[in-house]
Amino acid sequence: MMKKAVVLLSGGLDSATCLAIARSQNFACYCLSFNYGQRHCAELAAAARVVKAMGAAEHRVVNFGLAQFGGSALTDTTIAVPTAGVQAGIPVTYVPARNTIMLSLALAWAEVLGSRDIFVGVNAVDYSGYPDCRPEYIAAFERMANLATKAGVEGAGLQIHAPLINLSKAEIIRRGQTLGVDYGLTVSCYQADDQGHACGVCDSCRLRAEGFAAAGLGDPTIYLA
Amino acid sequence: MMKKAVVLLSGGLDSATCLAIARSQNFACYCLSFNYGQRHCAELAAAARVVKAMGAAEHRVVNFGLAQFGGSALTDTTIAVPTAGVQAGIPVTYVPARNTIMLSLALAWAEVLGSRDIFVGVNAVDYSGYPDCRPEYIAAFERMANLATKAGVEGAGLQIHAPLINLSKAEIIRRGQTLGVDYGLTVSCYQADDQGHACGVCDSCRLRAEGFAAAGLGDPTIYLA
Repeated sequence: MMKKAVVLLSGGLDSATCLAIARSQNFACYCLSFNYGQRHCAELAAAARVVKAMGAAEHRVVNFGLAQFGGSALTDTTIAVPTAGVQAGIPVTYVPARNTIMLSLALAWAEVLGSRDIFVGVNAVDYSGYPDCRPEYIAAFERMANLATKAGVEGAGLQIHAPLINLSKAEIIRRGQTLGVDYGLTVSCYQADDQGHACGVCDSCRLRAEGFAAAGLGDPTIYLA
Repeated sequence: MMKKAVVLLSGGLDSATCLAIARSQNFACYCLSFNYGQRHCAELAAAARVVKAMGAAEHRVVNFGLAQFGGSALTDTTIAVPTAGVQAGIPVTYVPARNTIMLSLALAWAEVLGSRDIFVGVNAVDYSGYPDCRPEYIAAFERMANLATKAGVEGAGLQIHAPLINLSKAEIIRRGQTLGVDYGLTVSCYQADDQGHACGVCDSCRLRAEGFAAAGLGDPTIYLA
């Protein structure tokens, strides 16, 4: 029987590549997406397209009410998404505790499924400077998870896989290309429109476009600017 | 200005005591409760009563869809709540990753509020053997939280307060009594009815009743058995 993995899937470039990597390692993939009050739902539509194209054992969308707290340009429409280029420091698009909440919900599902493997497409090279994308954070989460759960305490332990964490955006794209990922299905933009068209000027669009350029590959994204 | 604390409030005996302790330390308390598909909503009604009686800066209820995963007697009505007394090992009332999810959502709110203090009423003495109630788990969560967040990385750091963790149930009750907690407002039972009446035979009822007996205090709970 194939081993089960829970794969966090936002519908962006990184998580689609992460799913392809988990599949290439012969995991039965249980994909988990979130409706947390983000600015647009184009990324949830993208996640569904990616699952359909690549295949998965199951795909669930969990709701949690993060928008009521606000405090981020991605969950509070009164805070503008910066478009002047990637700056030093943690930007206003940082969503407090988002990866921790998502990994915690993945942990719950993994435990119920009897899965000991969680995949997350975080990256600490070509990224926006979010603290919860760094290797030391992932290691600390894994350690905590093994103290938190029945699987960790009584079982053989849980592993958080972050296979993209030390890759450049170009390396991620080349890796995905090799594994057959159709990046035309994915949406990276922080403020995509309902059709999934990208703004072209937010940090996420800039990192994506630069990644395709550096990889020497055509970018299938439709940028509005 | 008073320092702000986020206080996890289930509506049970422990979290009400924890709120009283946070208030006694002069924190402005932002209480957080959850609707996660638990068996009954009597505990959310209890949480609202406790906030009304004791006072808080704010009380929020966050929804998250944990019942769709099942895997626990507290979120899946097809799994019976054990009533034969507390056994060794992790019981079926254990909810996978519940405290991790709740603390993660508290972390999000704390960061938005500018709070560096989170209170949780976990206890590792008279408890059901849940792994996410132990001191080593709380320490690992705190360490992870300080790597996950802007507050941890750029600020002065976050602290997870678990003031009950090493107290017996009788000590918790005596402490709360001193601080004026009205335990008649609280609900501990895993399968309370809509009026908040307790079954009297689940682990949580047994631990509560034994705690009042050991404290030499009258138990205001209405037990059905």
